[in-house]
Amino acid sequence: MSNAQTQKVLDRIDADFDNSLERLFALLRIKSISADPAHAADCKAAAEHLAQDIATMGFKAEVRPTAGHPAIVAKSNGKSNGKGGARPHMLFYGHYDVQPVDPLNLWHRPPFEPAVTDHVDGRKIIVARGAEDDKGQLMTFVEACRAWKSVAGSLPLDVTILIEGEEEVGSKNFVPFLEANKEELRADYAVICDTGMWDPDTPMITTSLRGLVYDEVKIKAANRDLHSGVFGGGARNPIRVLTYILGGLFDDNGRITIPGFYEGVKDLPPDVLAQWKKLNPASEKVLKTVGLSIPAGEKDRLLIEQVSSRPTCDINGIVGGYIGEGSKTVIPAEASAKISFRLVEGQDPAKIRKAFRDYVTARIPGDCKVEFGDHSLGPAIALPWNMQALAAAKTALTQEWGKETVLFGSGASIPVVADFKKTLGLDSLLVGFGLDDDNIHSPNEKYDLKSFHKGIRSWARILAELAELPR
Amino acid sequence: MSNAQTQKVLDRIDADFDNSLERLFALLRIKSISADPAHAADCKAAAEHLAQDIATMGFKAEVRPTAGHPAIVAKSNGKSNGKGGARPHMLFYGHYDVQPVDPLNLWHRPPFEPAVTDHVDGRKIIVARGAEDDKGQLMTFVEACRAWKSVAGSLPLDVTILIEGEEEVGSKNFVPFLEANKEELRADYAVICDTGMWDPDTPMITTSLRGLVYDEVKIKAANRDLHSGVFGGGARNPIRVLTYILGGLFDDNGRITIPGFYEGVKDLPPDVLAQWKKLNPASEKVLKTVGLSIPAGEKDRLLIEQVSSRPTCDINGIVGGYIGEGSKTVIPAEASAKISFRLVEGQDPAKIRKAFRDYVTARIPGDCKVEFGDHSLGPAIALPWNMQALAAAKTALTQEWGKETVLFGSGASIPVVADFKKTLGLDSLLVGFGLDDDNIHSPNEKYDLKSFHKGIRSWARILAELAELPR
Repeated sequence: MSNAQTQKVLDRIDADFDNSLERLFALLRIKSISADPAHAADCKAAAEHLAQDIATMGFKAEVRPTAGHPAIVAKSNGKSNGKGGARPHMLFYGHYDVQPVDPLNLWHRPPFEPAVTDHVDGRKIIVARGAEDDKGQLMTFVEACRAWKSVAGSLPLDVTILIEGEEEVGSKNFVPFLEANKEELRADYAVICDTGMWDPDTPMITTSLRGLVYDEVKIKAANRDLHSGVFGGGARNPIRVLTYILGGLFDDNGRITIPGFYEGVKDLPPDVLAQWKKLNPASEKVLKTVGLSIPAGEKDRLLIEQVSSRPTCDINGIVGGYIGEGSKTVIPAEASAKISFRLVEGQDPAKIRKAFRDYVTARIPGDCKVEFGDHSLGPAIALPWNMQALAAAKTALTQEWGKETVLFGSGASIPVVADFKKTLGLDSLLVGFGLDDDNIHSPNEKYDLKSFHKGIRSWARILAELAELPR
Repeated sequence: MSNAQTQKVLDRIDADFDNSLERLFALLRIKSISADPAHAADCKAAAEHLAQDIATMGFKAEVRPTAGHPAIVAKSNGKSNGKGGARPHMLFYGHYDVQPVDPLNLWHRPPFEPAVTDHVDGRKIIVARGAEDDKGQLMTFVEACRAWKSVAGSLPLDVTILIEGEEEVGSKNFVPFLEANKEELRADYAVICDTGMWDPDTPMITTSLRGLVYDEVKIKAANRDLHSGVFGGGARNPIRVLTYILGGLFDDNGRITIPGFYEGVKDLPPDVLAQWKKLNPASEKVLKTVGLSIPAGEKDRLLIEQVSSRPTCDINGIVGGYIGEGSKTVIPAEASAKISFRLVEGQDPAKIRKAFRDYVTARIPGDCKVEFGDHSLGPAIALPWNMQALAAAKTALTQEWGKETVLFGSGASIPVVADFKKTLGLDSLLVGFGLDDDNIHSPNEKYDLKSFHKGIRSWARILAELAELPR
């Protein structure tokens, strides 16, 4: 692509930005919470809205059923530029589903009424559930495609846009969908927009991701709730059993006590560790932004290791007995918890899940039963450093932001990266414009207006660079 | 009183029983859940309804405000029989408030639509929230008074009926009310109907009660909910802190680990222990009725000790993070639990509460804060075995039921017994007709029709016997 052509696309993006924002707002107004069955119709509505919007750019866009919330498959090469199969072909991935919004009372404005507001430090921000994760992010790519189509009549390479609706609930039905449609989804590599920047001025490409095992544990004792005055002291209390088991998951040094948990986990190479020691103060600064100052993980590890290269365990939810106002002297019949593990390269998710369940089962006393529920099971992934698309995207990002692009490992999990590798044989390029203070999964989720604007511009440049790669 | 007079009262009770039942149903239909602020008006309605009903018997009955839900004070001696101050004077106590009804889906019929149904074993039962605790129980006394008034024109002794509306939430505002009205509430002894029978055929008088310390613990970490992908491993998780602390409350022998917890607790005298060894199989049978078979308390104690003469700790509720359907990779900002201790004679409730809070506070890591809430603080109590009213009631109960009355210690707490002793200087006679399978505080609460009917008859006899005691 000529630089002149790319510049025209960038100019078009700037001129059309208000409309880009309005199209994002239309998507943000749809309450597509995938975890809550009450919002199933909203998820369908989000898929239909997006497919329709993408179709207006000349893509062949379809809403496709899965066993859960639907997916969208949209292909740019319905209107090929005539060069046929010789062009590179990218598979772009995003998700239209969002996290639940509770606790609602902590939001400063209704989560599904997006608005541009002023951050305390003066930054312009878009506030809404999904503003970043992942509606704002995926729309940076969609809007970049729209600008290319509008200026050049076609994209500089072949693009399949694939958007799912169950990322926030473990993509259970999406993987069979990939499997069933793998011929149709063939491409040279995948590109995913669901990650962050190093800081508000420095672009980043994420080169490794932690895996995720997410289990639910329910412990049952008596056949009904009991009065603690009549039975207290003599009857099994499932909350006591649950807290005993979960309370033993960590030793005094913050290490996870499940036998075999750290098997296969490698230390950082000395040169990387040296580099990360310099980056660690930035991690400590981020911790301070949420009101904390003491790293809570393994005592002999840097905070930056704890949140990105070390495996972890978090209890994400727990409930049992009377949780209303006031008091009730009840011994409940059951108690349950949601527990997740972030895994790193070398750990086998299935083995970790089995080790956890064995650990729990071994501690269930007589008279109690345990039931497990499976929410997620994805391995960690590390991208090949010599991937050509990585170098091309790095060049484009550095040009747009005027700062050297950071290549870094993320502590989060995007299980679809592993699924793309396993099912479609594709490596995934992870580029995103989220910031650490975006409050994703929390009240008052936001996306910097600058992230959205320069994100669109970044993709326009990346598309141009990727088009130059040999197929 | 002549036996003939008493017999007339008993006949009257039998003849009027359908009306007694209808009056109980009218009270059971009022949703007087004291723990839930949404039901404050229902609590007031229950107080007004009861006061009006008692007034129809010729009592001077008033609804009296407290800082919380109102109380009722009703005096029979508005219509004295002319003997003046020489008659014995009893203070009767009950409570019109009931426990919350969740989980509602486990009820076989709406909890506030009382009905007489057939129990699986053929017993006729009254099913409703409060059918036993304490609406059914207090109405046995009210209906006995009604029969006496109806047959004899007056009661055989002076009676003050005192009914509160906050027993299920710790009677916080009732104690100041007692203090403020102690002159008016002077009596020779108190009589309370809020306890049970030994079995469906054997009457029981409860001679000791466990105390209750009920605390709420809230642990706070970050200033907002966090994404476990971004912060997992590095940020404090308050559920992890809470489960660690609560999970350490018991040692491997089922003993509570809080320093000083067992200080002052006495073993049973050898002769009592020998007697209880014979009664223990009955306790084990009760445990089986709720689907359990292994005593969960201190390993070196009989089950019957665990549930009545030993101090205990139960976690009555716990909540934190995402508890909806599906999964959310959140590290919550806070987590909380409701924890209660049943105390025995020799333990100081204030000391126990302090020891518990010290135990928790010592385990709160840096970056976390803890807040405590106080729901209840009542000591254990043991009645004097030589109390004259005890002997009189025992005689009356044995006559009505045709079986020797059991004198026994209860594992439950009725803090008002200690309050009556401390504030009014009164010992309390605890007579009730509840059964272990009444599901109090649980779905499908019931009261045997026989308990209600023979309960009324029992009080008619007890009133006659107590009238014979010297003042």
